[in-house]
Amino acid sequence: MRIDIITVVPDLLKSPFEASILKRSIEKKLVEIHIHNLRDYTTLSYKQIDDYQYGGGAGMVMMVEPIDKCISKLKGERDYDEVIYLTPDGEVLNQAMANTLSLKGNLIMLCGHYKGVDQRVRELFITREISIGDYVLSGGELAAAVLCDSIIRLIPGVLGNETSALTDAFQDDLLSPPIYTRPSTYKGLEVPKILLSGHQRKVDEWRDEKALERTKELRPDLLKED
Amino acid sequence: MRIDIITVVPDLLKSPFEASILKRSIEKKLVEIHIHNLRDYTTLSYKQIDDYQYGGGAGMVMMVEPIDKCISKLKGERDYDEVIYLTPDGEVLNQAMANTLSLKGNLIMLCGHYKGVDQRVRELFITREISIGDYVLSGGELAAAVLCDSIIRLIPGVLGNETSALTDAFQDDLLSPPIYTRPSTYKGLEVPKILLSGHQRKVDEWRDEKALERTKELRPDLLKED
Repeated sequence: MRIDIITVVPDLLKSPFEASILKRSIEKKLVEIHIHNLRDYTTLSYKQIDDYQYGGGAGMVMMVEPIDKCISKLKGERDYDEVIYLTPDGEVLNQAMANTLSLKGNLIMLCGHYKGVDQRVRELFITREISIGDYVLSGGELAAAVLCDSIIRLIPGVLGNETSALTDAFQDDLLSPPIYTRPSTYKGLEVPKILLSGHQRKVDEWRDEKALERTKELRPDLLKED
Repeated sequence: MRIDIITVVPDLLKSPFEASILKRSIEKKLVEIHIHNLRDYTTLSYKQIDDYQYGGGAGMVMMVEPIDKCISKLKGERDYDEVIYLTPDGEVLNQAMANTLSLKGNLIMLCGHYKGVDQRVRELFITREISIGDYVLSGGELAAAVLCDSIIRLIPGVLGNETSALTDAFQDDLLSPPIYTRPSTYKGLEVPKILLSGHQRKVDEWRDEKALERTKELRPDLLKED
């Protein structure tokens, strides 16, 4: 998989791809991440890429031309499955979307900043608008990092043990059951005896039961969607 | 505001706080961010902080003791409003929660990693569990960065122009209206004439109308919650 990220704050995106699982997935050549500084694609002075809103109001708007130049250059070099715009009014990301996107070959992610992009960017170039949740961030950069992480960890070979991703929360529309490790007693709190029993079928039953219980209590909406 | 972040991958959290708005808010002393490496709080060899799950299964579990040590040390130094655990089965973050948290003084954020934390950490220390969305990440670090960003940008003085945050998406349960900047025509696509009219009342009416239209089309669920 190849992901091209277009941003006005390339520095913000450094460390998420230089640590932990994302770093290893790049080293293993399971994924390529290319970060493009939008300011390299403007022909205006002071590397300007934003301007005031038509109609007035606070907040700058990212101009269409530099974005056009960057996306058009990339699309001239290879085909892309999706040109994604990270925006709070996009489709809200969920695990099913992450699963689908993890099967793609080439993706472009455009990070909004300031007040967002000129509407014509969305009409001309964007194939999919994604939000990571119902809140506003200072830019789409962290959203792009989150989207990359959610996708990349699902690519076979990225996680050490593939079953680890398959037993994650949401993969079966259930929250995870409680988990425990040593010591078996801590400040008077004990690990449930069933987990120490060595009886795998009973352990599995207990986990299924707890996962369902927890989902009913905390997120009944996940069960209704079935 | 002071935020203490507890993590096993401190490097991952570097750049988000060294760029853009988060960097400026730290420089302006509007917020202090302290990142704690959980491995500094273990007494085990090889700085071990995780162990196998009781009951078997893929994925390691973060042990209770190092987390206890780190949180207890911090709580010995000052009072905290919330000890937040970032986890996919927490309350799902929205703008109203970000607004509320932006009024707090001191927050601890614990980043889950691997399969998550021993259940007893949640029972003993955590006052609030937050998820940034219904998807799984390789760790809570990006989630903590997202939560910090959503909160910090709301602190008065962080954004250059405070009205910019108040006219954001979600602040009135509506998506934002389309925005445009120069040029007025691009590849045959024109800016709506009303925005060039200079008639502020009509511009405002048009924006309200479009915001409502867009919300009805893309996110009718936001309107139902009222």
